[in-house]
Amino acid sequence: MSDVIIVIGAGSIGQAIARRVSSGKHIVLADLRQANADAAAAVLSDAGFDVSTTATDVSSRDSIEALVETATKAGEVTGLIHAAGVSPSQASPETILAVDLYGTAVVLELVGNVIARGGSGVVIASQSGHRLGALTTEQDAELATTPADELLKLPMLQPDLVTDPLHAYQLAKRGNALRVMAEAVRWSKRGARINTISPGIIITPLAKDELTGPRGEGYRRMIELSPAGRAGTPDEVGNVGALLMGPDGTFITGSDILMDGGVTASYFYGELAPE
Amino acid sequence: MSDVIIVIGAGSIGQAIARRVSSGKHIVLADLRQANADAAAAVLSDAGFDVSTTATDVSSRDSIEALVETATKAGEVTGLIHAAGVSPSQASPETILAVDLYGTAVVLELVGNVIARGGSGVVIASQSGHRLGALTTEQDAELATTPADELLKLPMLQPDLVTDPLHAYQLAKRGNALRVMAEAVRWSKRGARINTISPGIIITPLAKDELTGPRGEGYRRMIELSPAGRAGTPDEVGNVGALLMGPDGTFITGSDILMDGGVTASYFYGELAPE
Amino acid sequence: MSDVIIVIGAGSIGQAIARRVSSGKHIVLADLRQANADAAAAVLSDAGFDVSTTATDVSSRDSIEALVETATKAGEVTGLIHAAGVSPSQASPETILAVDLYGTAVVLELVGNVIARGGSGVVIASQSGHRLGALTTEQDAELATTPADELLKLPMLQPDLVTDPLHAYQLAKRGNALRVMAEAVRWSKRGARINTISPGIIITPLAKDELTGPRGEGYRRMIELSPAGRAGTPDEVGNVGALLMGPDGTFITGSDILMDGGVTASYFYGELAPE
Amino acid sequence: MSDVIIVIGAGSIGQAIARRVSSGKHIVLADLRQANADAAAAVLSDAGFDVSTTATDVSSRDSIEALVETATKAGEVTGLIHAAGVSPSQASPETILAVDLYGTAVVLELVGNVIARGGSGVVIASQSGHRLGALTTEQDAELATTPADELLKLPMLQPDLVTDPLHAYQLAKRGNALRVMAEAVRWSKRGARINTISPGIIITPLAKDELTGPRGEGYRRMIELSPAGRAGTPDEVGNVGALLMGPDGTFITGSDILMDGGVTASYFYGELAPE
Repeated sequence: MSDVIIVIGAGSIGQAIARRVSSGKHIVLADLRQANADAAAAVLSDAGFDVSTTATDVSSRDSIEALVETATKAGEVTGLIHAAGVSPSQASPETILAVDLYGTAVVLELVGNVIARGGSGVVIASQSGHRLGALTTEQDAELATTPADELLKLPMLQPDLVTDPLHAYQLAKRGNALRVMAEAVRWSKRGARINTISPGIIITPLAKDELTGPRGEGYRRMIELSPAGRAGTPDEVGNVGALLMGPDGTFITGSDILMDGGVTASYFYGELAPE
Repeated sequence: MSDVIIVIGAGSIGQAIARRVSSGKHIVLADLRQANADAAAAVLSDAGFDVSTTATDVSSRDSIEALVETATKAGEVTGLIHAAGVSPSQASPETILAVDLYGTAVVLELVGNVIARGGSGVVIASQSGHRLGALTTEQDAELATTPADELLKLPMLQPDLVTDPLHAYQLAKRGNALRVMAEAVRWSKRGARINTISPGIIITPLAKDELTGPRGEGYRRMIELSPAGRAGTPDEVGNVGALLMGPDGTFITGSDILMDGGVTASYFYGELAPE
Repeated sequence: MSDVIIVIGAGSIGQAIARRVSSGKHIVLADLRQANADAAAAVLSDAGFDVSTTATDVSSRDSIEALVETATKAGEVTGLIHAAGVSPSQASPETILAVDLYGTAVVLELVGNVIARGGSGVVIASQSGHRLGALTTEQDAELATTPADELLKLPMLQPDLVTDPLHAYQLAKRGNALRVMAEAVRWSKRGARINTISPGIIITPLAKDELTGPRGEGYRRMIELSPAGRAGTPDEVGNVGALLMGPDGTFITGSDILMDGGVTASYFYGELAPE
Repeated sequence: MSDVIIVIGAGSIGQAIARRVSSGKHIVLADLRQANADAAAAVLSDAGFDVSTTATDVSSRDSIEALVETATKAGEVTGLIHAAGVSPSQASPETILAVDLYGTAVVLELVGNVIARGGSGVVIASQSGHRLGALTTEQDAELATTPADELLKLPMLQPDLVTDPLHAYQLAKRGNALRVMAEAVRWSKRGARINTISPGIIITPLAKDELTGPRGEGYRRMIELSPAGRAGTPDEVGNVGALLMGPDGTFITGSDILMDGGVTASYFYGELAPE
């Protein structure tokens, strides 16, 4: 029986973290589309990793239950890399909340029920969660602790209040970090840890398309004016993921690591401030 | 001419980060008390580091100016580790704001004027900054961007509103993270980066005294009930400092890394919640 | 002008190290075959790296000179990852010595003429170099210090003495580590460092083919009987490369890091001993 | 029951590695002199580590047996840092062989009998082992595999052949690396790894004394003429120790990592060559 790393989301960021923490372990790689999972598994297998795949819809509790069952059959689940989600340019507010907010809550609940002693997980959120104004203490607590299957019924998340995909995305990503805080307490009962990484603009094949697409000018301006003056690489997210999931990060749990080239700083106090 | 790392505060955390990033460089070590600086310098020198010391009062612009002049004479300033401060059990609200809030603002301003291209700094704040409720957007901006010498005149910081040392400390540490965001924009003009680390309970000689002192029971309970179930070590802060100041952290600037063994998570959503 | 990392050899190992040390820098990627360089560049570009390519024949001084000229035009050469070579199953003894031994000597000479202060390089050798019995002190010195263009004239390398491709390969790889020692002295005059990594069986697309090919059984047996009980991943070589090329490795130069899952240990003192 | 790290030798190098790998674990710290162990334990305890001490004479099998029993009673032995030894300026050839060669062999044997699955160890050897000319294949095998209690009876180690403390030291340190190779095979049966680090001149309080003592000029010349142009720090050895003992090093076993600022390279092919 191997140690198992569950990777949800077949994209570059999940892969980059997986590369840093999965040598000699078994990766269970889940994606909404089996074909995406298989393509990523082929790349990781060519890079020496032992990978199996499954199609998982993270907006479905049943589907996540099946994923967790697959993983526990493969070995002891010592790691979680949750990097699946839909972006505001891809989906409606309802879908974004269902996948990014509810789905993450269920993933944390179900993987948190089986995570091994000494295990560790990371959830990929977004710098977008850092742009939303402060919520009330009560709203924070609702997002953090409402039972997963009640989450989407919260008044603050109803369609009349969340009409814009970007707003839904910001709420979902803020909610991810809050949920991770509450789950960090629960995961600790099993001797495990969970943290959030909030990346900024990271170059992936999809991001490259966006940078040359109709909204590309805005993104390119954001990159040029940002303190770092460049976009990030998935491998840089891998650096942070490796720290959080490895022995150097064992005092870190319930945290949210913003790594955005300074975009958030500039949004609030620099050239990227909205007019 | 060597590369120079400025370390402000002779305590264990500053030393631990310095050990990770200063081999082959020159450390200019500043502390309020020359004797403390000398003692730490002796330890670091025995550990192979090249160190000079100076007495610096971080609540005094003149004193920080002298420190920066000393550092630039010694070489090119490629790093800053700002780990000086007073704790709520040591000082009045006025002193806490003067040292921890105003002093940090001046340090960031003056070191930011000379930091080398490719340079990087970390400011040690505290988990305490994460417990304060949300400030308004305007208050955030005031703490982030008010010219340093005007900071202590802000209405929100006046003695009638800040009567408790812990409140002053939380405001100062929240202010540090906000200030770092604004300075991250400015430091980027020189090709440099600056981040905050917010540690939880870290074992140092002083902390060991507190754990066995009159308020020790509260601290020990906090540690026992925390998700990590233990206090942290300065060397673990060194791990995060090394990441932030080194090549693996070049996409991270203006961020605040909370590393507290999950105490903040538990304060909001676990056993450490205030009654 | 960017910092430039020269990567010679478009295979997985060179790419994995490049991913760890090239964020925010420019990669000049050279391979014997332009198509291979372009394919690797496409992968790295999709992963957020800034890459240009060139076709380089490392057995030709003129070709390496052209590569170095291309690199210096692109910026300051702060890093070298030399991962090109031919394996004993691919080539004759003459070709192996020309590419792996002579080519590496010329690469080290010419890149060593331009490497930046603070720069660092790694040469990928092989565990095979550790299996060869001890050479004499004189032979070691000849391989280390004979001018590159005289190297292939050494009596010990003549065709009547080196008839087997594996022998040629072992000599070349031993020679790489020796050459790196001598060059470490020379590179230090520019404030730069150079080291060797000697990997064991690392999974790459080519290695996967070999493992399922006619000689696959021998390789699979070697893996199964090895102390690690598994092959390595390119990303694990990336871990060592990142250490050697980064600030944590500045006291390491002229060294050869064997990372082979214990195969060499077992070859000499374990189940993998030749009968 | 904690995870236990056995640290043998209370000096700076062992402490520096321990700091990197022991947060949240229990350190059993052994030294020949109880007072040295206690002093180091006080430093580590002030730095947040959980430490117990014992006096151990590594030239005595009984004493090492007692150490291992103490360690296994404290928890599961997941790590070994063997940094004890005598230097050629401190002892006779007989003592050097008894402590540095025989003692290390017994430590590796007895700790290797109890090391946990996934555990890892490092043995601190020395650059001196790299200066000795090549031994024969038979001599290598004798040093690697002769039962520990027979080791000192080997003909090559008899007093008429080993008359000089430096020669004894070089043989012992070469022997450490060879012994580690053979033990890497045996440790792998328990799923554990063991490697050697061969440091050059590392600044410690003892080394500082030597640098200013009667033989200081030779050492200072060696440092100045070395490629690195400086001595190393214990924390830099900690970097390598952390890699070898952590998840990034799981493909490395039976290796010997030379980290000497290029002194060995220069000894063979540079300014430090003996006349």
